[in-house]
This record gives sequence, structure tokens and C-alpha cells, in this order.
Amino acid sequence: MSLRLLLVAVAHARLAPIRQRAASLRGGADAAWDALRAHVAADIESTHLRDLLRDDARNAALTFACGDITLDCSRQRATVETLRLLAALGEARGVAAKRDAMLRGDLVNESEGRAALHTALRAPRGAAPVLVDGADVHAAIHDTLDRAYAFAGKVRAGGVGSTGKMLTNVVAIGIGGSCLGPECVYEALRSEPAAQAAAAGRSLRFISNVNPAMAVAGHFCAVSSDVEKAANFGVEPDNVFGFGDYVGGRFSVHSPVGALPLALHFGPSIFRKFLEGARACDDHFASAPLEENLPVLLGLFGAYNSAVLGFPCRAVLPYAQALSRFPAHVQQLDMESNGKSVASDGSALAGDAGEIIFGEPGTNGQHSFYQLMHQGRAVPAEFIGFCESQRPAHAKGRPLSCHDELMANFFAQPDALAMGDVDEAHPERACPGNRPSLSLLLPRLDAYHVGFLVALYEHRVAVQSFLFGNNAFDQWGVQLGKVLAGRVADALGDAAEAAALNSSTRGLVAAYRRHARASIEAVASGS
Amino acid sequence: MSLRLLLVAVAHARLAPIRQRAASLRGGADAAWDALRAHVAADIESTHLRDLLRDDARNAALTFACGDITLDCSRQRATVETLRLLAALGEARGVAAKRDAMLRGDLVNESEGRAALHTALRAPRGAAPVLVDGADVHAAIHDTLDRAYAFAGKVRAGGVGSTGKMLTNVVAIGIGGSCLGPECVYEALRSEPAAQAAAAGRSLRFISNVNPAMAVAGHFCAVSSDVEKAANFGVEPDNVFGFGDYVGGRFSVHSPVGALPLALHFGPSIFRKFLEGARACDDHFASAPLEENLPVLLGLFGAYNSAVLGFPCRAVLPYAQALSRFPAHVQQLDMESNGKSVASDGSALAGDAGEIIFGEPGTNGQHSFYQLMHQGRAVPAEFIGFCESQRPAHAKGRPLSCHDELMANFFAQPDALAMGDVDEAHPERACPGNRPSLSLLLPRLDAYHVGFLVALYEHRVAVQSFLFGNNAFDQWGVQLGKVLAGRVADALGDAAEAAALNSSTRGLVAAYRRHARASIEAVASGS
Repeated sequence: MSLRLLLVAVAHARLAPIRQRAASLRGGADAAWDALRAHVAADIESTHLRDLLRDDARNAALTFACGDITLDCSRQRATVETLRLLAALGEARGVAAKRDAMLRGDLVNESEGRAALHTALRAPRGAAPVLVDGADVHAAIHDTLDRAYAFAGKVRAGGVGSTGKMLTNVVAIGIGGSCLGPECVYEALRSEPAAQAAAAGRSLRFISNVNPAMAVAGHFCAVSSDVEKAANFGVEPDNVFGFGDYVGGRFSVHSPVGALPLALHFGPSIFRKFLEGARACDDHFASAPLEENLPVLLGLFGAYNSAVLGFPCRAVLPYAQALSRFPAHVQQLDMESNGKSVASDGSALAGDAGEIIFGEPGTNGQHSFYQLMHQGRAVPAEFIGFCESQRPAHAKGRPLSCHDELMANFFAQPDALAMGDVDEAHPERACPGNRPSLSLLLPRLDAYHVGFLVALYEHRVAVQSFLFGNNAFDQWGVQLGKVLAGRVADALGDAAEAAALNSSTRGLVAAYRRHARASIEAVASGS
Repeated sequence: MSLRLLLVAVAHARLAPIRQRAASLRGGADAAWDALRAHVAADIESTHLRDLLRDDARNAALTFACGDITLDCSRQRATVETLRLLAALGEARGVAAKRDAMLRGDLVNESEGRAALHTALRAPRGAAPVLVDGADVHAAIHDTLDRAYAFAGKVRAGGVGSTGKMLTNVVAIGIGGSCLGPECVYEALRSEPAAQAAAAGRSLRFISNVNPAMAVAGHFCAVSSDVEKAANFGVEPDNVFGFGDYVGGRFSVHSPVGALPLALHFGPSIFRKFLEGARACDDHFASAPLEENLPVLLGLFGAYNSAVLGFPCRAVLPYAQALSRFPAHVQQLDMESNGKSVASDGSALAGDAGEIIFGEPGTNGQHSFYQLMHQGRAVPAEFIGFCESQRPAHAKGRPLSCHDELMANFFAQPDALAMGDVDEAHPERACPGNRPSLSLLLPRLDAYHVGFLVALYEHRVAVQSFLFGNNAFDQWGVQLGKVLAGRVADALGDAAEAAALNSSTRGLVAAYRRHARASIEAVASGS
């Protein structure tokens, strides 16, 4: 192992839950859902998107902005009346009140008796206090952030490891939210000129594994919501960076989980810009009227497509190779948050809260699964594009820049999905169209806008949970698998335990053990 | 640019189609679908998987093998009777006859008047002739393969570029199938000991872009089904590697598309093993009885889950980080092939042929979207595991190896999905279970088994298309987007063209152009 290496181990403690149910906030919402369903049956079902798109006033009314960021919802299967009914649904479901409760630190994660305060991670110094157990969380957050920045600064200024060599290579070890978020941001920024210059001569790698072997203790630092446990693991206390249990793994990329590896690699000032972008989105989410509020609109249309129009999936399609891991990040953020069937009060949900999310960068996706989206099943799609390229290039003799050619596809695909094309002589070429999508156009793919984008998707997830009534911040569904894995692990070491498995699992485990035995024998006999 | 660099540009020519429809092969199949539906209504719908799994004889009857590869279908929502009805469906749909027609080079890609002969790519020298336009394809395939191996061997033996430096770094430029397959195989093998040793000191990178700039001509080679076009592009004729138009992009990883970059990086002998594994799967597919035929069983259960049980999605979950790009490869292979709504004869399909495919390596997925699979929507899942680790490790003091701990999860998750768990006091913790999955256990993740796995998924895609009746080998749905992108590209350079766009696209394009103008002005004024 290179001794220029610094290992960052990241873990999220799962504390024992405190049950504390709030009174149900449901109520008049059923009427709002019913009104939407009636509207769809009367006005939407029989109307093709190519006809809706003929109405310029409607198109303009379904296009929104936050500063220089545009959200075009005109290719949703919606009219101005749909938007009015969606706003009424938001009203009936108390979206604004629930948002405010989340932002001020109420215990909105009811099944675990916790707040969900990822927004506090990026609040400025001197922000209005947010109390958890009577204490303002901002001080602790800024304290840890300062320590992480100082640590990163020291390492970056030529800090040496236990063998006297400069530390230039960072390996971040983590799983789920401890990996997907930071890896996504790393990929997004490593080709961005300012971030790339700041990372010159350095490397950052991510490892997800079930049981990493321990390395040189002095080269280990840890990020955990359970500081004591990390210290017990053998990491020097100065090298442990904590965060509150009010930050879930999938919402933690703005915490030390992201701050430590990303500030080590790109430097604190790039990470500060990443926080600033998220903060701008937080401010917009907190203050913009619901019917002009980007994350609220995304949540409303998400719920509309899934629960009213009945689409089970959603595609996230960034037109930027640098966002190659953004779909995987959103997949975790959204599916782990809203992949639930019960409301916070324990009652069954009226519909499935969460969709199945998938995606790849648009250019590769177009030559891959878009075929199905055009001619097979309809999948509501979210196109994400940028006005500027991270690396402008213009091939000699071509009328357009490379980025213009890429963006021509970004502009064209939503129309191909919406408009479709008839070919009566060649039925295999016909595209039915009427497939909804929305387009998000941002000025450039830098640290600030990546921060904004991540926060935008965090908030849309919360909004969608407000609309359905589920708790977006727990993840009890992953527990059963862990318990059963423990049982199988016992069985792998103990034949009596193996006999207790069901016959199907027993058969597979036997095949696995047989192979292991055969390969050990092959090694022993020198074959 | 490093002059140690060799650029491999890969493109698939899309020739003008020849329409040549075969007579419809449908017929008695409707009765077979109906029988399955009746069986589900009577025997399956009200039966929980945890009850089905109590029957040891059933579990054994639903577990299959091809050599040392196990396919466990006992966690499908199926009985022995289901299997019998699925085999009858396969019979009624003429799966064996269609398979044979594909393998012998019939024009099964009817809308383009082409064969689908990816299997010929890995046939041994001296295999029974497969004729296309009267000539045996094997000679041309082996001739090109020999040239690719010789070229790779020369470069790897110390071949120098135009500046006299050794060529050690390869950049493969391609999109869709010209990228996803080779990239998937590269990722799968780069940590495999034999492949890694063979690639020491070399690098291979993949670029997908819409318009790569041309580099030093002498450092360019090309893989194309249109050899003339590649030569016209300026590539030296000796550096052009062709393949027949009977190989579609998504089926091309065993062609020079994969052979050139992978043999340059890992050497010809590793690539030969990759072909051997695929050939073993081809032989099994061609000769095993349908009810023991792994790709046929995968196709039958795929069709059953999607068209009879009504699940729109399928998750591909490899328990190996090295297979991180396998889900993206399968996503293209499957969704581009079967994402269709019309049969080969132009009639509408009875149901959606293709599912929406997504996935991530199991360890990260468990801490991500599995939550939704356990407690939200049901998603049929395909678990892929290996008996041996590519890099065995055993942490000091732990009873199990790292690989055993990983595999404990591989064995446990299918049970968690199938069995579920009731928690009446805590409804938010309950998992309903009854979620189908299947498990594929292979001995090890080496070139041979990656080849087998890729071919296995290729053939399952074909089988599923045989069952539904669609043409798996064309992709007309991607054409409309290309045409519209051309129109937008014109509009980006010409205001008159822009005026002809619909108001929604016009609005977005205007925002894009406004930003470009503003940033040019900002540069001009030095701000």
C-alpha cells in the first residue's frame, strides 16, 4: 500500500429507535387527490401532449425559474388547471407547514424520534438558531467543519504521513450514503476547471466493502455519528469527525461525510461553494411561493405521475458525463426515502409513495434504454442540461461546438418523447409519443450548481413524502436483510446452523461450500 | 495529449433498411398465455412465497445447473405446474425453432433484412458454415480477429507510435454498444489476477461523446461495420477492423468492438478465454432441453413476471464490485432489444415485451434502493454471486473471510424479499415479502465466466422476444430523436430555423443562447 495514502472511513450509526408518533396530518387530502383523478379522466387522458404543446400561454405558465436556473414542465401531461389542482393538493397535505417543521428541527423522523436537519449542515454562521435537545446545532456543525477544513488544509499544504511522505492519495471507505453522495460530487467536479486545478497531483478513490482490513492506524481518519465507537475502532480522536444523528446517510453529502474527502481532494474553498449552492436552494425552498417553488413543483409532478397517472418509474437523464453517478445518488436518496407502504401514523398509504429511479448520462442512454422509452413502456423523464460545457471544444470545420451538438440532443429528446411520430407504412418505426418529461437547465456544472442540484433533489424527496404522508427519513426495510445475513453468516461457519436454513438457501450454500472445498483441495494437490 | 496514446474509434453503421417480412409465427400461443393466467388466478395469486418455499421437492425442481453454474428459481412465484405451463408457452411460441433460425443465420432481423449472428463471433475455427449472402461468415470473422490479435500483440510487444514512444495507453471512443459492453468487461476483469497481471503498465479508458476531435492520424484505429467510411474518415486502412452488419451494437462486445481495446489492454489470450466462455453458453443454449436451458428459463420467467404477474421492472444485482457496469450493459442489451410495442409482422403486441432494467452492485444497493424493494413496490430481482473472490482476504480475528461476509448477504437478501417479516406493533418495520427473485451462482469472476454471463443475458433477451413476437434486433425508436436533434442543431445556428420550433423548445433554446451570449460578453469585457 502506498504510504502517501490517507484512509477516510465513514459509517452511520443506527441508534435504537424512540417511538413518538405525531397525530396524523391527513384529512382533507383525499378530496384533493380525487379532484386530480377526476380532472385527469375528464381533461388529460384523451389529450395528447402534442396538442397540449400547441398552447403557448400554457407552455409559458408551466415554465419556472430560480435565478438563472430554468425548470420547464410544459411536457408534463398537465394543463394550467392541473397545476392549480396540484397546488391545492400541496395545500391540503400541509406541505408548507411540514417543510417549516423540518427546517426548524422538529422530530419529523417520527419512528426514530429524530429531526432531519441536513439543511443545518449548510446554514451560514450566525443563522437563526435550530435547537436539538435544547442546544443550537449550528455551533457544533461549524466547529466540525472548521476542524475538517483545517485538517484538509494541513494535509494539502504538504502534511506528511507516518513514513515522512506527503499525503496525496485519499481512499474513502463507506457504503450507501457514505459513498454514493461524495462519489457523485467527486465525479461531477473532477473535470471542472477550478476543481481540477485545485486537485492537481492528488487522487481520491472510493471503496465500498463489507469488511475492509485495517491499515496503518496513523493514516486513518473517521467520520461517524457515533464518535465514541470510531475512537474505539482505533482511530486517533483528533482524526474523528462527528455529526448529529439528525442527518441520515443519504442526506449526508454536505456533512463531514462529504466535507472530509472532498475538501482533502479539492480544497476547502471548492467545498464551501458546494455548500453555498445547496444553501441557495434551501433559501428558495424555504421562501418561494409553493406554485413557483422548484423542489415543490418537482415533488408535485412526481406524485402526479406516479399516483395519479400510474407511472411506476422515473428516469434521471443528465446531459453531462460528469454527472454519471448522479442517477445512482438520486436512486438511493429517493428510493430509500420514499420506498415505503405505511404513513408516519402506521396506516397504509393510499398509493406507492416512491417510484423506481434509474438513469445514465443522456448521450449513452440515447443509444441504450431510450429505445424502450420511445416505443415500449412510458417512463416520465427528467432531463438535466447545462448552458456551458466544463471543457468547451469546437471541432475544426463544424458549424456548432461539441457542447451545442450535445445540447441539440438535450432539446430534441423531450420533443421526440412528447410528440411521437406516425408511420403507417412501417408500424415498427412509429413512436406513440405522449410521454411526459421535464427539463432542468442550469448555467454551468460547477461546485455551486452541483450543491444546488443535490439539495433540489433532497427537497423534492421530502415534498413527495409530505404529499403521501410517509416518513422519508427512516429505512426499516433494510433491517430484515441484515438480520438474515447474520443468520447465514453463522451458517457459513457452523453446520448445525446451516441445517436450520430453508431448503432453497441450504442448497445454494451447499454449492458454495462444495466449491470452496474443491478449490482448497485443488490448491493443496498443486493442480 | 500523451503520445503513448492509441485511440480506438468505434462506430456502428446504420444501413438503409430492407423490408422483408416473414409470415407471422404467432398462432396457438394465446391459449398458452391464457392457461398461465388462469393458473396464476387459481394457484399463485393467493399463495405467499414463504408457503411455496416449504416444499423441498418444488425447490429442487426449480433449481437448475449448467456445469458448475447454478440457477436457483425457487424464489419465483411459481410451482412445478407453472414451469410446465411456461415450457408449453415456449413450445407454442416456437422458441426452439426461432433459436435455431437465429443461430443458422436466417434474416431474423426482419425490418432491416439482416441476420443476428453475434454467436458466429465466438464460433471456433472449423465450425459448421453459417452463410450470409452465400458466403460462410466464419472466415471473415477469424481473419479480422487474427488481425486484431496481431495488431494488439505488436503494440503490446513494444510497438511505438509516431514519436517513437511505446504505446501503453488506449482510449476507446464509442457510444452505446460501442462503449457499454467493452467498458463492462474491462471493469469486470481489471481486478482479476490473471487479467490484471497481463495489463501491467497499461491503461484503457472509455470516452462517449457526440463529436470527438480528431487526433494524430497515425495513432487512430477504427472498428466499424462500414470499413469504407472509416477509411474515408482518415484512418489508415491497415488500422480499420470491420465486422458484418449482422452484429448489432448491443451484441457486439465479442466482435472487434470488444476485441481491439480488450486485447490491446489484457492481451489476446484473456480475450480468447472471454470468447470461450460465451461459446460454452452458446453450445448450452443450442443443445440443452428447453426446460433445463438457462437462457430459456431466464426468458420464460422474465416474460412470466412481466406479462402475467404484471411487474414492469427487473433489478440486476451482482454481488461483485467488478460487475459495477454489468447492470448498465444489460440495461442497454435488454431495453433496446425488447422495448417495443409491435410484433415483427407489424401487429400490436399483446403486452409490453421489455421490462425496465436497473441495478447496482449488491453491497451498495442494499444500502440504497433495496429499501423500496422490501417495503415499497415489488421488483423481481436477479442476484448474481460467485463462489470465489477475485481477491481473497480474511481480516484478522474474524471467523469468516471478507468474501463469506459478502456472500452471506447474497444468500440472505432473496430470503428477506421472499419471506418478509410481520411486526404488528411497528407497522413501519413490517416487510410484506412475497417478492420474487432468482439467484445465479458462478464459480469465479474471470474472463471465461464474464463471457458466459454476457452471452447468457444476450440469449435470454432473444428468448423473451421469441415469446412476445417482437424483433429484438432493430431499434427504430432511437431514430426520431436523431432526426429532431438535427433540426434543433440547425436552429442553434440559424434564427429562422429556431422560429420553427414549438414554443416550449423555443423558450429553452432562447435561455441557452442568452446565457451563451452573456458569457461571451463577460469574457470580452474581461469580467
